[in-house]
Amino acid sequence: MPILNKDMSLCISLAARPSNLGTRFHNYLYEEFGLNFIYKAFTTDDIDAAIAGVRGLGIRGCSVSMPFKEAVIPLVDAIEPSAAAIESVNTIVNDGGSLTASNTDYEAVAQLIEEHSVDPGASVLVRGSGGMAKAVVAAFRGAGFDDLTLVARNEAAGSAIAEKYGYRSTTADPAPGHAVIVNVTPLGMNGPDADALSFTQAHIDAADTVFDVVAFPAETPLISAARTAGKPVITGADVIALQAARQFERYTGVTPTREQIERASTFSREG
Amino acid sequence: MPILNKDMSLCISLAARPSNLGTRFHNYLYEEFGLNFIYKAFTTDDIDAAIAGVRGLGIRGCSVSMPFKEAVIPLVDAIEPSAAAIESVNTIVNDGGSLTASNTDYEAVAQLIEEHSVDPGASVLVRGSGGMAKAVVAAFRGAGFDDLTLVARNEAAGSAIAEKYGYRSTTADPAPGHAVIVNVTPLGMNGPDADALSFTQAHIDAADTVFDVVAFPAETPLISAARTAGKPVITGADVIALQAARQFERYTGVTPTREQIERASTFSREG
Repeated sequence: MPILNKDMSLCISLAARPSNLGTRFHNYLYEEFGLNFIYKAFTTDDIDAAIAGVRGLGIRGCSVSMPFKEAVIPLVDAIEPSAAAIESVNTIVNDGGSLTASNTDYEAVAQLIEEHSVDPGASVLVRGSGGMAKAVVAAFRGAGFDDLTLVARNEAAGSAIAEKYGYRSTTADPAPGHAVIVNVTPLGMNGPDADALSFTQAHIDAADTVFDVVAFPAETPLISAARTAGKPVITGADVIALQAARQFERYTGVTPTREQIERASTFSREG
Repeated sequence: MPILNKDMSLCISLAARPSNLGTRFHNYLYEEFGLNFIYKAFTTDDIDAAIAGVRGLGIRGCSVSMPFKEAVIPLVDAIEPSAAAIESVNTIVNDGGSLTASNTDYEAVAQLIEEHSVDPGASVLVRGSGGMAKAVVAAFRGAGFDDLTLVARNEAAGSAIAEKYGYRSTTADPAPGHAVIVNVTPLGMNGPDADALSFTQAHIDAADTVFDVVAFPAETPLISAARTAGKPVITGADVIALQAARQFERYTGVTPTREQIERASTFSREG
């Protein structure tokens, strides 16, 4: 670490329950590139005051997590399409007191879909209607996919998201046969649902690409089963690393390589 | 430096023209004691928003410099006597959203007067009516000194300070003969007045203790002349180090030794 000095740019995160992930990821890359930046996670019980502080203290960048992703919308000066598309902000950049909001989760999902060269004509099955569902569904819409089914236990939440992007929703599992299957539920996440497989083996076997947004662990039961079946996978760890890299790029103007992103991601998950 | 992590407490400073001094002093002692703290200097053009940020982000401590020392008074929840005595704040401590203001410049000057065992019956001559004059004059009043003369070119400013604490003021230099002489002007400071001696040699020769609040350089012409004449001295570097140590103690609950304060001060002045 460099000796801390007055001229360092500070970037922060705001979350109800901060993790160490962003702090370790960004500081790793600041050191890698020799940038005079520091990053630290914060929580707040007053999002208005916290964003006032971002302006008042000249904090360069601010990652925004639950439950503040919508509350910050009226507090910024400009909204980029990535955030407008899903009415959800996860990134704020401060240019001399002018705050611009974006959503790098959306961008990361869109980039991963593109990199995996998934045919936009393919059928997509998305399970879940929680925090990341909008970013995922909107990214498929943005990539030109027309055939997407959202399965959600919460019928109202599921149909609201599906209708917003011109897709269908259901509460009952469709038969296997979708080329892309995407889990956006907590099934498989560390905790009570850690052992749950979010799609049936038949759904996995029928798929060409398996995508899980659960990031802890990266190797969920779904991802493990997909690897065993020889399917290309996109993991929640990929999404988190890529969205953080997009934030890093916005804050610093520096573009890390994929290898640097992967090293930062590995480091971030160790602490 | 430790690896930065989400749980670190952040302390900051707010000044129109931040220096590296506080950042280096505090971070040096955080490392010395293995405290999970970081410190960084900030500036702001919106002191209200900056103090909102101190609350909203749970920033543990905030050093306040010119020109914000009076402006923060209505923004805090409690004022300690050290700040109330001189209507000037240089330190804010945040206890779970409740902000308490104090003035460690005043405390440092008071402590240095006490440590030098200056007789409260002695006559004191103070030159200057600027930023530190109130802290110095109030500290002599607090220590029980009755015979103090303030010399100031700005008659209104000088008499306002002198009268507030029950002392006399003048614009003309009194004859030598004061036991304590104190410079609170920029005479001797790095810059256009670097070579200026703030008291005559006759005043120095007649004094028992020579005190200069100029901190850059620590060895002003006044301090050098006093050392040559074999007089005990109090330097501006002593004041800055001690006031910063008082802040450190308030923020962390840890009391550094005098030797640790001196090492941190030396480190802080190197960068």
